[in-house]
Amino acid sequence: MLFVAEGEKTIHELVKAKYNFHSIFATTERLQKFENINCPLEEATTAELAKVSAFKSTPQMLAVCHQKKNEINYEEISNEISIVLDEIQDPGNLGTIIRLASWFGIKNIICSHHTADCYNPKAIQATMGAIAHVKIHYIELDRFLAHPIMQSINRYGAFLEGENIYTANLNHHSALIILGNEGKGISKTVEQLVSHKLLIPSFSNEKRVESLNVSMAAAVICSEFKRRSIPIQ
Amino acid sequence: MLFVAEGEKTIHELVKAKYNFHSIFATTERLQKFENINCPLEEATTAELAKVSAFKSTPQMLAVCHQKKNEINYEEISNEISIVLDEIQDPGNLGTIIRLASWFGIKNIICSHHTADCYNPKAIQATMGAIAHVKIHYIELDRFLAHPIMQSINRYGAFLEGENIYTANLNHHSALIILGNEGKGISKTVEQLVSHKLLIPSFSNEKRVESLNVSMAAAVICSEFKRRSIPIQ
Repeated sequence: MLFVAEGEKTIHELVKAKYNFHSIFATTERLQKFENINCPLEEATTAELAKVSAFKSTPQMLAVCHQKKNEINYEEISNEISIVLDEIQDPGNLGTIIRLASWFGIKNIICSHHTADCYNPKAIQATMGAIAHVKIHYIELDRFLAHPIMQSINRYGAFLEGENIYTANLNHHSALIILGNEGKGISKTVEQLVSHKLLIPSFSNEKRVESLNVSMAAAVICSEFKRRSIPIQ
Repeated sequence: MLFVAEGEKTIHELVKAKYNFHSIFATTERLQKFENINCPLEEATTAELAKVSAFKSTPQMLAVCHQKKNEINYEEISNEISIVLDEIQDPGNLGTIIRLASWFGIKNIICSHHTADCYNPKAIQATMGAIAHVKIHYIELDRFLAHPIMQSINRYGAFLEGENIYTANLNHHSALIILGNEGKGISKTVEQLVSHKLLIPSFSNEKRVESLNVSMAAAVICSEFKRRSIPIQ
């Protein structure tokens, strides 16, 4: 399976991560930087790139690249922090969460089949190259979470009620951070497989319904887990 | 000055915050909910709404609304956490930061004149109604930061080098959190008016340049400041 990656930064990261390229299209000047890659390099004008680009601002460079198929390594996941996504719809949110994961040293993201495609151009764009460094898996979440090794670690879900994340005990060595759909949150089936419900409290004094975007919630939760791993000064 | 707000949730929040409406356009059924508002209510078909909407997914409702002009209250700002934005370009990022601010009980956002317009339809959309509850000011930042009252409080800037935010002393009662442009970061002029440089450390073990989107950085920083305000259990 192939996908299209746009922009020099993303393509550079894919090269570094040893992705397999089908072909790279770029303006003459940009192509020179990629001469050592073992894949067909094609010259293209800015006008041609604009025609095929998924974005309004034309990239100088566009690559057709082979998707990587990652095997789920349950042992690895059980010794780390990983993210589980239950039907994240918006490719921009997915891409932002992939970028976040990379920043926070999270190597695996496990997605339900109804989560947006990580190879969607908008998702790839939002990762800013981090797509190259995070292993993304698509699997039925009830099957994944019911796996004996996953059952042996803490499975934290982000809810609108639950334990205050700032004061809760968090296992920062080994955990699944589960995030739900933008509108509906975590599905009933997945909820039953969550071991700890976490809440990000609102600090607003007003009595109104506030909401936090799912990628913002991901940032707050990842930050809090990783903060706990810093040795006390 | 007028602006266009789309979507029922946003318009409801504007009503609650006592914004002044010029007119509201909606399908017959939706209009009934707004009968008590003192402003012209206009019936519109979905097709008509689709024509004027800035988005692909047509809203059921669209309002033309008077902008609120907020005066900067230096005394109020000096007793709270506020956000300062130095040339945030993307209206989506601005809107997301406004939504975050509302969640974290932050009442004031001070923007440089080159920051995106908070009344841009994409910005308003991303706030999910929070535009109604946060006071947004546009001012020359060097003038704002040089104000004697602002000079008397801590002015924390987000940089790619600086003190680790997780271990730094943070004044969570009174602070400015300063965030810079998506590509260039905080400008030289504003940097000279920062009192503390903060770094969000990357937890990636790989030797590569990671990056964090400015609204993600905002989420992490606001979360860390507000966490410190929680009484120890």
